[in-house]
Amino acid sequence: MVRIGLIGFGQQGKLYSAILTGTPLPGMPPIPKPEECVLTAISARNEICKGQIEAMGVRYFQNWQELVASDVCDAVVITVPHFAHHEIAITALNAGKHVLCEKPMTVRASDAQAILDAQQTNPGTKLAMMLNQRANSLLQKIKTIIDSGELGAIRSSYYISNHWWRPDSYYATNPWRGTWSGEGGGILVNQACHPLDLWIWLCGMPQAVYARCLEGAHRNIAVENDVTVLARYPDGGQGVFITCSHDLLGTDRLEINFAKGKILLEENRKATVLRYTQPEGSFGDSYDFRTFYGILMQNPQEIYTREELSAETAFCGDYVQMFRNFAGYILRDENPIAPAQAGMHQVQLANAIQLSGWTGQEVTLPCCCDDYDNWLARKIQEETAQ
Amino acid sequence: MVRIGLIGFGQQGKLYSAILTGTPLPGMPPIPKPEECVLTAISARNEICKGQIEAMGVRYFQNWQELVASDVCDAVVITVPHFAHHEIAITALNAGKHVLCEKPMTVRASDAQAILDAQQTNPGTKLAMMLNQRANSLLQKIKTIIDSGELGAIRSSYYISNHWWRPDSYYATNPWRGTWSGEGGGILVNQACHPLDLWIWLCGMPQAVYARCLEGAHRNIAVENDVTVLARYPDGGQGVFITCSHDLLGTDRLEINFAKGKILLEENRKATVLRYTQPEGSFGDSYDFRTFYGILMQNPQEIYTREELSAETAFCGDYVQMFRNFAGYILRDENPIAPAQAGMHQVQLANAIQLSGWTGQEVTLPCCCDDYDNWLARKIQEETAQ
Repeated sequence: MVRIGLIGFGQQGKLYSAILTGTPLPGMPPIPKPEECVLTAISARNEICKGQIEAMGVRYFQNWQELVASDVCDAVVITVPHFAHHEIAITALNAGKHVLCEKPMTVRASDAQAILDAQQTNPGTKLAMMLNQRANSLLQKIKTIIDSGELGAIRSSYYISNHWWRPDSYYATNPWRGTWSGEGGGILVNQACHPLDLWIWLCGMPQAVYARCLEGAHRNIAVENDVTVLARYPDGGQGVFITCSHDLLGTDRLEINFAKGKILLEENRKATVLRYTQPEGSFGDSYDFRTFYGILMQNPQEIYTREELSAETAFCGDYVQMFRNFAGYILRDENPIAPAQAGMHQVQLANAIQLSGWTGQEVTLPCCCDDYDNWLARKIQEETAQ
Repeated sequence: MVRIGLIGFGQQGKLYSAILTGTPLPGMPPIPKPEECVLTAISARNEICKGQIEAMGVRYFQNWQELVASDVCDAVVITVPHFAHHEIAITALNAGKHVLCEKPMTVRASDAQAILDAQQTNPGTKLAMMLNQRANSLLQKIKTIIDSGELGAIRSSYYISNHWWRPDSYYATNPWRGTWSGEGGGILVNQACHPLDLWIWLCGMPQAVYARCLEGAHRNIAVENDVTVLARYPDGGQGVFITCSHDLLGTDRLEINFAKGKILLEENRKATVLRYTQPEGSFGDSYDFRTFYGILMQNPQEIYTREELSAETAFCGDYVQMFRNFAGYILRDENPIAPAQAGMHQVQLANAIQLSGWTGQEVTLPCCCDDYDNWLARKIQEETAQ
């Protein structure tokens, strides 16, 4: 059994406390309590939460430092604002606690590296990321298909991840939202962590990116909320990643092209897997090009097969799976679904995209941390000087 | 009645001669002969075609110069290889003939400008482009919706135009295919003229482009056949254009996002038009962001309406429409469906994309003709030196 201390009791923290204690949410289906996890402590700065927390039979701390220093938990789950992640994670690891960190690991890759270093100097600790979309059963099936190699090498991926509609009234709910000083960025730091992670997980890490990042596009905010990325990969493959917060009926579509097939993923709920009966390049040996199109119309099964996949979704099932996996990682060294390196890669990619947007130049990955940190410092300074 | 001389009797020339004479194609539905057009002459370098042409009751010329100089036609239709377009078009215009030019107008924008100049110095002549996809009834409906302004300003367009699968055996059918000296480029000069034109027609001309152009991607050719473009527009909008010749089951998908709606066009055959009940930005005034998503699930008609449109297609109907329109343009000064300027813009955009790919820099439109021409000359020189 892993004794878990939750740091932060905002929207996400409250959800995790319900999941970890098996408390049903009003009007929602029951959530199976993750095995091998027990919630023993919560830290929340606002003392008004104390009663609610203690009513769950959970120890309350006002300061996360006291929770980390205490002996009531083996692991902490960090669900506080991004800029506070690295200090808490490092302190917890140095105190011998395992860490499950909410996305993004950090704003800056330099801070993420400090967390990874702290884990290395405390080899008894485990560090993993709450990148829960990796636990989606459909995405796991796709990952298995890609890794099996049956579709061959990836040639291109085109990801439109615009399903992050946020109106001005959303950004106005908290003064830190949509600011450089409060969040360290916009959609790249907040909403798009998930698709950036999935893109890396499924298609690999780009070698270089060129990006356009529009700041305050159709919104009264300082940070980027409309991003278009052109990526290239070490093996010569191409990628495009698009994300914005002003697409009302936001498109969520990932297309991956392989030497021997194609995968189309829509809204993380439905996938179409097309498998070619030969490698793409060799169809031209069998048919001339017009004959090929005739067969494609009249006898497509000579060319390809089609499989439709869908997600088996249970309410909060991905979170439950992530907690189970975190416990298994700690107790039996099971493979983490989202290892620390995944958090690092996602931050490195987000940083490189920002840096390319700011400089107007293609940026090679991993980008220079000093360059990114200096640019971000300047953005924060300009904002707070206003 | 417009008397038409056809210059070139290759694949496209043969098709146009059948259309203009109302000759049924074997195994295909009948094609309605375009009114006000009569095919009076064809030039074809290969004298073996003479009998076939004269059997249609059409005058045969071996040299296009003789056809242009003759008095048997009022207009010429140019369907010869790209590099020959400008010399023929300029000669024909200077001889007082109207010109309908196959796409692309030219390889180089500098040559296209010379054609436009020749038309200007011969004000009695009419010059138009055979960009037949503009005659597609579905695309015309979409164009009308966009131009009406009901959906507001365009914010972004994402075009995946990968339905140009061509195997190595296709490129091997003619020695000029897939070469700089023979075609002046690859997919940007040949196959993707249509989607580039449609993109400009529907979404406007970009202000600047950044592009990656892979030459010989998965094919044994010298020219570009895998292109990814990031475009920006004068009003701050964003665009992405993707095209390649190695996607076996090629995606053809154009998404356009507006302030008040969204259009999704698939394979030029099916379109979905989503109209928001308010401008996108103002939904946040009416609903908080979580309430919005609840309504979107349960009562979507409060948020938007959906209209599905499809194309009314007749075999070769778009070509027939283009010929009719060309005659109307000549005889009654009707608006041309694809005016000369459309041909010019398409070439300017293709040139700018190539130049960005070659230089690795963003290129402002229209790009410097000398820069493009020098780069192309170097590509041709390198190729022929091998």
